[in-house]
Amino acid sequence: MTGPEKQENPSILERGWLWFRDIPSKPIAKLCDVARRAIKVAEEDPRRLIHSLKVGVTVTLVSLLYYLQPMYDNLGASAILAVMTVVVVFEFTVGGTIGKCLNQGLATLAAAALAIGAQHLAILTGKRSEPYLIGLFVFIQAVAMTFVRFFHNVKAKYDYGVLIFILSFILVSISGLRMNNVLNLAQARLVTTVIGASTSLAICILFRPMWAGEDLHKYVAQNISQLGNFLEGHLDQCFKTSCDAEIEITKPSIINLDSIIVDSKVKEETLADLARWEPGHGQFMFRHPWKQYLRIGNLTRQCASRLEPINGYLNSKFQAPKEIKCTIKEAFTESTKALKELAWAIETMTEPSSASPHIENLKIASRNLKSLLRSGVWGDQSDVLQIIPVAAAMIDTISSVEQIGDAVKELSLMAKFKSRMAEIPSLSVAID
Amino acid sequence: MTGPEKQENPSILERGWLWFRDIPSKPIAKLCDVARRAIKVAEEDPRRLIHSLKVGVTVTLVSLLYYLQPMYDNLGASAILAVMTVVVVFEFTVGGTIGKCLNQGLATLAAAALAIGAQHLAILTGKRSEPYLIGLFVFIQAVAMTFVRFFHNVKAKYDYGVLIFILSFILVSISGLRMNNVLNLAQARLVTTVIGASTSLAICILFRPMWAGEDLHKYVAQNISQLGNFLEGHLDQCFKTSCDAEIEITKPSIINLDSIIVDSKVKEETLADLARWEPGHGQFMFRHPWKQYLRIGNLTRQCASRLEPINGYLNSKFQAPKEIKCTIKEAFTESTKALKELAWAIETMTEPSSASPHIENLKIASRNLKSLLRSGVWGDQSDVLQIIPVAAAMIDTISSVEQIGDAVKELSLMAKFKSRMAEIPSLSVAID
Repeated sequence: MTGPEKQENPSILERGWLWFRDIPSKPIAKLCDVARRAIKVAEEDPRRLIHSLKVGVTVTLVSLLYYLQPMYDNLGASAILAVMTVVVVFEFTVGGTIGKCLNQGLATLAAAALAIGAQHLAILTGKRSEPYLIGLFVFIQAVAMTFVRFFHNVKAKYDYGVLIFILSFILVSISGLRMNNVLNLAQARLVTTVIGASTSLAICILFRPMWAGEDLHKYVAQNISQLGNFLEGHLDQCFKTSCDAEIEITKPSIINLDSIIVDSKVKEETLADLARWEPGHGQFMFRHPWKQYLRIGNLTRQCASRLEPINGYLNSKFQAPKEIKCTIKEAFTESTKALKELAWAIETMTEPSSASPHIENLKIASRNLKSLLRSGVWGDQSDVLQIIPVAAAMIDTISSVEQIGDAVKELSLMAKFKSRMAEIPSLSVAID
Repeated sequence: MTGPEKQENPSILERGWLWFRDIPSKPIAKLCDVARRAIKVAEEDPRRLIHSLKVGVTVTLVSLLYYLQPMYDNLGASAILAVMTVVVVFEFTVGGTIGKCLNQGLATLAAAALAIGAQHLAILTGKRSEPYLIGLFVFIQAVAMTFVRFFHNVKAKYDYGVLIFILSFILVSISGLRMNNVLNLAQARLVTTVIGASTSLAICILFRPMWAGEDLHKYVAQNISQLGNFLEGHLDQCFKTSCDAEIEITKPSIINLDSIIVDSKVKEETLADLARWEPGHGQFMFRHPWKQYLRIGNLTRQCASRLEPINGYLNSKFQAPKEIKCTIKEAFTESTKALKELAWAIETMTEPSSASPHIENLKIASRNLKSLLRSGVWGDQSDVLQIIPVAAAMIDTISSVEQIGDAVKELSLMAKFKSRMAEIPSLSVAID
């Protein structure tokens, strides 16, 4: 059934006939649909295609272990584990892959060691009670480790490691019941895991690496810049024919802040968790202050949720006494500029000194707005329900922008952003 | 190093000495700390302990396969796969376990069939080119499936299935190079997967099942009730000595709405995805309208983000002309009642008719508030910056509460909530 027919909501009989009629064209339509979606997914972020190719190459490389006779002779059927390790461990970002490799490596090592210990203990008690004791160990271990997965910080960072620990412990300790040499099994498992993990790591880092840290860095800057665009959109819509019409801005649509308010927190925290595993790269040191990005992200979200109500009050028919309207416009303009300067400062890792004058202007605008509102100079009382919420949201927003400015300044000190001085040539280009 | 010493931030030398000095007491302190946290995790939700025990029992049961000689003779080393399936598939909620079982089962089946097909195709081309062709298939499959994982709806529901597909395809097709009878391997793998999955399912559903649907149901109701508590807290703090002081409410602290605004979306969507796998249970049918809960959740979040700014404006020093203050208080009281009635209606699955009078009152209060504000009757202009944002937030909140009321009414029709009439005896108890 193709798209348009679906929307008509036909009866069951009709649907049955349509289904029957469409049998020949169905797979083709479906394939076309999947292809269209695939192109969309790839266009959204072309790195997805690169990642898929990298996984394919790594899997094929590692499966050579299984083709090559000498490797197979040494590792036996365990060789397949190397391929499995690649599939499970190879993540989109370098941080994700390193984190999973470390988790897998350490968990396998710890579990194998413990399981061999348990095995020896069980053998000491005699051949007869051995399976019972192993069963008991498996039970206790499974209960304890499953429970540990509920710990908040374990769940966030080591969930995969704990899962591998449970699996490896059971594999090694149970296999001991049937095999004479558990050590060989444990060793083969370890070697193949190391081969799989190290190949994944090498290909992940060496060919077109995707850094979680870089993504976080860009994402935080982009969200701040989105706030600026939001204000700019309103500026264009509502204050065009205002006190001074010399500045012409051509942003057509109002930006939706919902995605910043609701979705950004999880994304930022995930990226920051992954970025912590990453070594230094490009402009980022090993211990780059990723936590500060989360702080900036929180303030951005706060600012977005303060700005969001404006949508309901501000439209092209916004009427207010000229003085108030000019002050609100001033606040909009300066906030837009300040936010864009801050976003630019993060993106280019430059000191955010260019935002300071705008933030100073904002403080003045906020004071002016408050005193204007308190003096009650509105000619036409009927708009007070529209003016004051906008003004109040704007006053809140200004204090949010100030806080974002401070947080970015802190970040620039922590991460040693380059001085503005060195940037003057490129700066003038950016301002032009 | 124990807690208090950490906070003093000593120099490296001091820290070294402290570390050395604390060696004997360290493991004990660490153990005590872990134990305390474990108790806290178990107290937050005692079902976590039950889940851990269930996993332990299932793992131990399934590992019997490996102990018992006749089973081992038939399944061989593949028996270990059953235990692994349990560890990977057994989730906290029934929906999660069913979803993973279906994913694992279907993906294994499809991948095994395809891999055997690929194997036969490769054999047809001759013994020499077989490994190359298999390698090519593995490569293409890995690239395609890794890419498919980026599709939004695949990632949300079938990510695990795709992973298992990749693993199973590689396992079966590569093993074919070394074994004469791939069918046997595929069959053993399938049987063990089925044994592991079905044991997990049985234990998950039969002993103290945790239903994702029930969790979602309770969570949505609880969030609405939290909004009521938030309003009640403010009512208590700010309007105590107001126009009529007869109602005495003893809610001490102001509730934080951040967790509703920021965290609830992901939790609700995850639970709704899991609930869709669940069969009918208790008061819930098989196709219970879980999507409607997401709609209610969205409206609740919207209401929370409209209420949140009130925190900044409302405090015990809130001053306003008596008429306005009484109307705002009326809006607070009626919103509290309406929200609590709605939460109660969802929780007990009763028609939300008891909320209607409160919602009607709210509409009147909203109209009164608007006309009062427009008539500009405040005696003391200096508070206008405090009064209007609160009033505007309240007017927005009222329209949100109305929308929540409508959405709950829709839910009650969709899910056939029981009529209010049948509930009168228990109702009167609840109101008392």
